[in-house]
Amino acid sequence: MKMPLGEEKNGACDRSIYVNNPHLDSMTDDILYHFNLGTSTHDLPAMFGDVKFVCVGGSPWRMKSFTEYIAKELKLSEPNADYPNICAGTDRYAMYKVGPVLSVSHGMGIPSISIMLHELIKLLYHARCTDVTVVRIGTSGGIGLKPGTVVVTKQSVDSMFQPRLEQIILGKPVVRSTELDGELAEELLQCGKDLAEFETVVGNTMCTLDFYEGQARLDGAFCSYSEEDKQSYLAEAYAAGVRNIEMESSVFAAMCKLSNLRAAVVCVALLDRLKGDQLTSSHDVLNNYQQRPQVLVGHYIKKKLNASKKS
Amino acid sequence: MKMPLGEEKNGACDRSIYVNNPHLDSMTDDILYHFNLGTSTHDLPAMFGDVKFVCVGGSPWRMKSFTEYIAKELKLSEPNADYPNICAGTDRYAMYKVGPVLSVSHGMGIPSISIMLHELIKLLYHARCTDVTVVRIGTSGGIGLKPGTVVVTKQSVDSMFQPRLEQIILGKPVVRSTELDGELAEELLQCGKDLAEFETVVGNTMCTLDFYEGQARLDGAFCSYSEEDKQSYLAEAYAAGVRNIEMESSVFAAMCKLSNLRAAVVCVALLDRLKGDQLTSSHDVLNNYQQRPQVLVGHYIKKKLNASKKS
Repeated sequence: MKMPLGEEKNGACDRSIYVNNPHLDSMTDDILYHFNLGTSTHDLPAMFGDVKFVCVGGSPWRMKSFTEYIAKELKLSEPNADYPNICAGTDRYAMYKVGPVLSVSHGMGIPSISIMLHELIKLLYHARCTDVTVVRIGTSGGIGLKPGTVVVTKQSVDSMFQPRLEQIILGKPVVRSTELDGELAEELLQCGKDLAEFETVVGNTMCTLDFYEGQARLDGAFCSYSEEDKQSYLAEAYAAGVRNIEMESSVFAAMCKLSNLRAAVVCVALLDRLKGDQLTSSHDVLNNYQQRPQVLVGHYIKKKLNASKKS
Repeated sequence: MKMPLGEEKNGACDRSIYVNNPHLDSMTDDILYHFNLGTSTHDLPAMFGDVKFVCVGGSPWRMKSFTEYIAKELKLSEPNADYPNICAGTDRYAMYKVGPVLSVSHGMGIPSISIMLHELIKLLYHARCTDVTVVRIGTSGGIGLKPGTVVVTKQSVDSMFQPRLEQIILGKPVVRSTELDGELAEELLQCGKDLAEFETVVGNTMCTLDFYEGQARLDGAFCSYSEEDKQSYLAEAYAAGVRNIEMESSVFAAMCKLSNLRAAVVCVALLDRLKGDQLTSSHDVLNNYQQRPQVLVGHYIKKKLNASKKS
């Protein structure tokens, strides 16, 4: 049973958010525990009803800095404006909002982002949001790319390079598609070209459950394979179109698809994994790299908002 | 190739920490990226050489409060003492130390704790620590338990109730044992009896990759099964000895075993999943519950340190 929430407006149907859960209807109250928010304690439509863009990323600090950046870009910032953490009272996630842009941290790995997305999707549904675009802005290891290159994900693939996510539900495997919005990926690539500040490419992104052995690194606490094994695995990945590796894109793609959210993944490659495993660049250089997905997505949001003002 | 690091001391061989990675020897520098620490930038033996107990838990805030608690318990606290975050400069993890007790946050889920453990194990190895006991102090959902009951894990099992962890390395599945230290579990259970402040039980802990569908919750953004399906799955789990469900124990057990660390998992059950899915208790009640694993493990550490002073 799908429960879309859309309204006919000016003859066009807004893109609605689905929650595929018949049980929610019978709940008098819904506690979004890891956000420290709830339907009976917070007026979610008033707080979030105008959200059109959600940007998510691993680090709370980076998501706060994105909010400050986007406020300036959209000319919504006031002098000395502070953006309080909407999820104050919990340190599981941090959430900030400015105008139509919501920014949420998700921690590291599929389970951590999946908890956040369950609660985010319910939040957007309860708030009666429509036409929402969600972008993960993150960091990754590149394959055959110059460090600092920004990768817009074409397909999120698993460790066997397949565009799928296997989840276990009631002890049984369920396979979900990790398809992303192709049109949105093209638009983001175009934003990279507009900006011309750094290299932006479209490629497949491998999503793993582990940073060290799961990504063929040689520098974890355990390693049972050789440099040659590593290089041959990464070469196979490259041949399958993989240009970067991270740890959240597959469940992000699968859950956004299930809930009818337009979704994209934009990650900067902090290093070229063919040349090494450790992040030896200076903090300043890495910080500059980490801002690139923010700049790209900031440009996209500005372009979209300007276009909707004109129409 | 195993690389133990032990010394004969007073005729007895200390329990050493293994890193099972021959590549580490050839590295001139090891950057523990997610801790913002490294072998060439920090004197790890001076900073951490005396560590005998490591307590890990999901929330940074809880790990700081554990450090303050244990400092008082061990009478190591000075008036107005502040415990700075050793991982300042990154917001991936938080780390605190007082005397022989290190306290580290690990975020939520297997991938997040696994990154932390790779770097923690290397840290303890580089610091030449010996005889280290690691305890995860966390929260969980109980099955057939009164909320607030503390569960000491006997076996960490997967969604099919098997004591194993499947990891994907170079695209191929590798199965690891999730066996924990039986003697340590018994000692911790005894501490619960000594204290007699709350109920403490030993039971199996199911470790899942997802909080909602993966734990048969009915209140996620998606749910394709009925209340009856949920109850029957949880009943199967109970029959297999499962008393609580969380999201980190399996990889914690597997990695500690591989590196020769004495390990235990102590989690409080915040609710009884047979009776509901949402955390409806007040924040004060939940906070009280969350302190119980800290109190139990604090008692254990005090007991061990007193015993070693006498011997």
